[in-house]
Amino acid sequence: MFNDFRLAAGRPVYIQVRDYLKGLILKGALQSEQKLPSTRELGELLGVSRNSVISAYTLLEEEGFIYAQAGRGSYVASDASLPGPAADAEPWRMDWKERMSRQARQAVELDHMKRGLRAEKGTISFTSIAPDEQLFDLENVKRAFLDRMAMEGRVLLNYGYAKGYKPLMDYLLNYMESKGVDLQGKDILITNGFTEGLDIVLSALHRESGGAVICENPTHYTAIKNLKLHGFEITGIPMDPDGIDLERLEEALAERAYDCAYLVPSYHNPTGIVTSAEKRLALLQLFSRYRIPVIEDGFNEELRYSGSHVAPLIAMAGTGNSVVYLGSFSKVLFPGIRVGWVLADRALIDSLESVKRARSIHTSTLDQSLLFQYLQNGNLEKYLKKARMEYKRKYEWTKACCERYIPFSRLSGSGGLHLFIEFPEDFDTWKLLEACSEQGVIFTPGDMFYTDGRGRNTMRIGFSRVSDEDIGTGIRLIGETAAKMMGN
Amino acid sequence: MFNDFRLAAGRPVYIQVRDYLKGLILKGALQSEQKLPSTRELGELLGVSRNSVISAYTLLEEEGFIYAQAGRGSYVASDASLPGPAADAEPWRMDWKERMSRQARQAVELDHMKRGLRAEKGTISFTSIAPDEQLFDLENVKRAFLDRMAMEGRVLLNYGYAKGYKPLMDYLLNYMESKGVDLQGKDILITNGFTEGLDIVLSALHRESGGAVICENPTHYTAIKNLKLHGFEITGIPMDPDGIDLERLEEALAERAYDCAYLVPSYHNPTGIVTSAEKRLALLQLFSRYRIPVIEDGFNEELRYSGSHVAPLIAMAGTGNSVVYLGSFSKVLFPGIRVGWVLADRALIDSLESVKRARSIHTSTLDQSLLFQYLQNGNLEKYLKKARMEYKRKYEWTKACCERYIPFSRLSGSGGLHLFIEFPEDFDTWKLLEACSEQGVIFTPGDMFYTDGRGRNTMRIGFSRVSDEDIGTGIRLIGETAAKMMGN
Repeated sequence: MFNDFRLAAGRPVYIQVRDYLKGLILKGALQSEQKLPSTRELGELLGVSRNSVISAYTLLEEEGFIYAQAGRGSYVASDASLPGPAADAEPWRMDWKERMSRQARQAVELDHMKRGLRAEKGTISFTSIAPDEQLFDLENVKRAFLDRMAMEGRVLLNYGYAKGYKPLMDYLLNYMESKGVDLQGKDILITNGFTEGLDIVLSALHRESGGAVICENPTHYTAIKNLKLHGFEITGIPMDPDGIDLERLEEALAERAYDCAYLVPSYHNPTGIVTSAEKRLALLQLFSRYRIPVIEDGFNEELRYSGSHVAPLIAMAGTGNSVVYLGSFSKVLFPGIRVGWVLADRALIDSLESVKRARSIHTSTLDQSLLFQYLQNGNLEKYLKKARMEYKRKYEWTKACCERYIPFSRLSGSGGLHLFIEFPEDFDTWKLLEACSEQGVIFTPGDMFYTDGRGRNTMRIGFSRVSDEDIGTGIRLIGETAAKMMGN
Repeated sequence: MFNDFRLAAGRPVYIQVRDYLKGLILKGALQSEQKLPSTRELGELLGVSRNSVISAYTLLEEEGFIYAQAGRGSYVASDASLPGPAADAEPWRMDWKERMSRQARQAVELDHMKRGLRAEKGTISFTSIAPDEQLFDLENVKRAFLDRMAMEGRVLLNYGYAKGYKPLMDYLLNYMESKGVDLQGKDILITNGFTEGLDIVLSALHRESGGAVICENPTHYTAIKNLKLHGFEITGIPMDPDGIDLERLEEALAERAYDCAYLVPSYHNPTGIVTSAEKRLALLQLFSRYRIPVIEDGFNEELRYSGSHVAPLIAMAGTGNSVVYLGSFSKVLFPGIRVGWVLADRALIDSLESVKRARSIHTSTLDQSLLFQYLQNGNLEKYLKKARMEYKRKYEWTKACCERYIPFSRLSGSGGLHLFIEFPEDFDTWKLLEACSEQGVIFTPGDMFYTDGRGRNTMRIGFSRVSDEDIGTGIRLIGETAAKMMGN
């Protein structure tokens, strides 16, 4: 006994001794009423100080696992061993797979993260569109945390409000106003990132007979997944180089009713297309005419490299209240901090607030306050300057490589963190992936972004986290492999 | 112009100048192609350094709001003013209230936070059961943050995994094992607090015809609310002093089928009752016999003041897999950090992982890593020692006050952060609240915790955040007011 104790670094010794003894008691290796070694003795046996054993015994006493008898030593408590299942009763084991709801089954089916290719070490992976973590300014994040903790640490650690942390809400309202949004009659809700925002909005929307949504095709996979999980029937409209195809959109709108539209006007995922200002206006007028509210995904708006200012739809809508804007800094700043927001009509936000409270009470105050202080300290501007420059360089380099090596029929993406490639109709990017992956290069086949099962001839190239050298090597390999497959 | 600029503290000056000028441009106060003052001139007008103006102009240029002409100065860009809604089109305003789903309407209806009494300054409020923030050990929280940031700051700020942050998952698995849980075949999912955990479990459970659940009556309000939002029909079974009434439970189980049970075995909310070890075993056998999975709410388990060790249901179930345990340190440690967990059968967790990913990608890595490091550093033990002592003292004092002043017919609660009081059947605690609130004391009427509309004669007294003096004054006032109402 006591010879399998191993001390680990970075955790108080007395707690490790407590954990160890508790384990022995629970396993029955130390039994009810058994006398424990003296503190001096056990200290020697375990190779720890006597004081650590004393503290461990004290803790175990408080927790009711052992008791002390004056002058006689410590004993294992008689009720400390586990009651456990009545020995005669066979514990019931059920089949959970059989008890899963339709939604849970569908969530598993649509969970492509569970079926994605695992990048082995050394693989050049173009699958991610997460930010490059080498750009993170950790010192300023630390500073923001310490600043805020010093100001109101206790507030940050206790319950907050479902709508959000007030200083952050105010900051973001100003921020959205500075994008040209008319805030009159609007309000904001802080969410656990974009995804919770979308999920809450979708669950709050009344739907005629299951629900129908119209969106760009291809579009953001998470949106497709969540729309399906909420039972929406999805109609996707093809993309032109300056945004959704207006003519096709109008035809579709004339044909049947929709409960809402979902649009990604800036750095559209996966095509990287920025919808032009003219088209944004035309879209608003069209949806207004057909009385269809619009969910605007503000995705990556902040990353625009070019100088020209294009307002989000919600700004262009002026005093109109039919646009619901979903914002997030996840792709721009730190995805690990799960903070997003919904900016919309006040009556809608009022309902969403109650849904949010039922879902998760509120978003982490710690995350919200850290993000607020980071923004307030003026770090976003500095960070964006650095990030835009770096991503722009990578974007241009990736694009140049694609143009040189890949036999595409269309290349789109005017910035952001990714490019989108279309091959001739009969080309299969899953086969390309298979061939490339054997040679240590992977990317995302584009069909998962399509609402109608098409797109087997497309792919997304995320370059944000790939080094310049690997971009060169990887794109060249993809291009050469594709060319071979095309028989060139 | 420029005379309404006000400098605020704690934000870089050049950013404030940028924000200010951007505002003028967006509002149209500065118009297309208008010449801006020189940097020296504007610096003087605004009372800021010339350098700040130079930096602000640079930023505005990058953002496309102004442009510079060599030797001539800076101008407002021609496309900088907002496109805005086409002047001739009346912006469409829709009625969002009409577009809300059944679930959203119900979430608003059941959102008692929106209808609760607001405590005015000076009010003695027994409505909260949040932890006393004076107990928070901010220094150790800071230490944990800095420790973790130093080790892997970049990892913490980028995307994590839907299941959770590995070191925290491992810590919690050990922690649950030390409560006696057989981990074989089980797995863990980290959630945004208890509430998201419950919401995800409920949405994943297959239900026959809408769903039926059996639980304690009264019970945790958030659970009642979320069960209703998920469409469950709720059957509540009355409480004995040592837990749910077993006889009534068995009668109910014999009568009809249930999809699941929901139980709060420790410091039951709102009654404060701890279910005895014997009753826990009996409950498991009963639910096992009727083939009903149990959702166990681990609420406040950590706060037990008394020494005796009572294992959670999931530990007593041994190798059985029918108990789903929902854990959280929110009421014990820091509610502002939204981290909870679901411990359950591996096949179930696998499905829940996909639902979680669809809901919110993953729980904040920052929160998870901070919590992990705080626990790893051995702070929980120290903190619990302090917290248990403090809450025990307050509990005993509150109980003594209630016994002295309040004409109750039953007082329950063996610890935790609250007590539950029942008056004779015809007494109305809403009327009592009205009378007390006029005198500056509020509490939570108990009917909201009942599954069947009863409980108008009950109330919950949360004492965690009330000072000793206020406890004395407040309970006395409640007692005297109640006595008056009863005609004594």
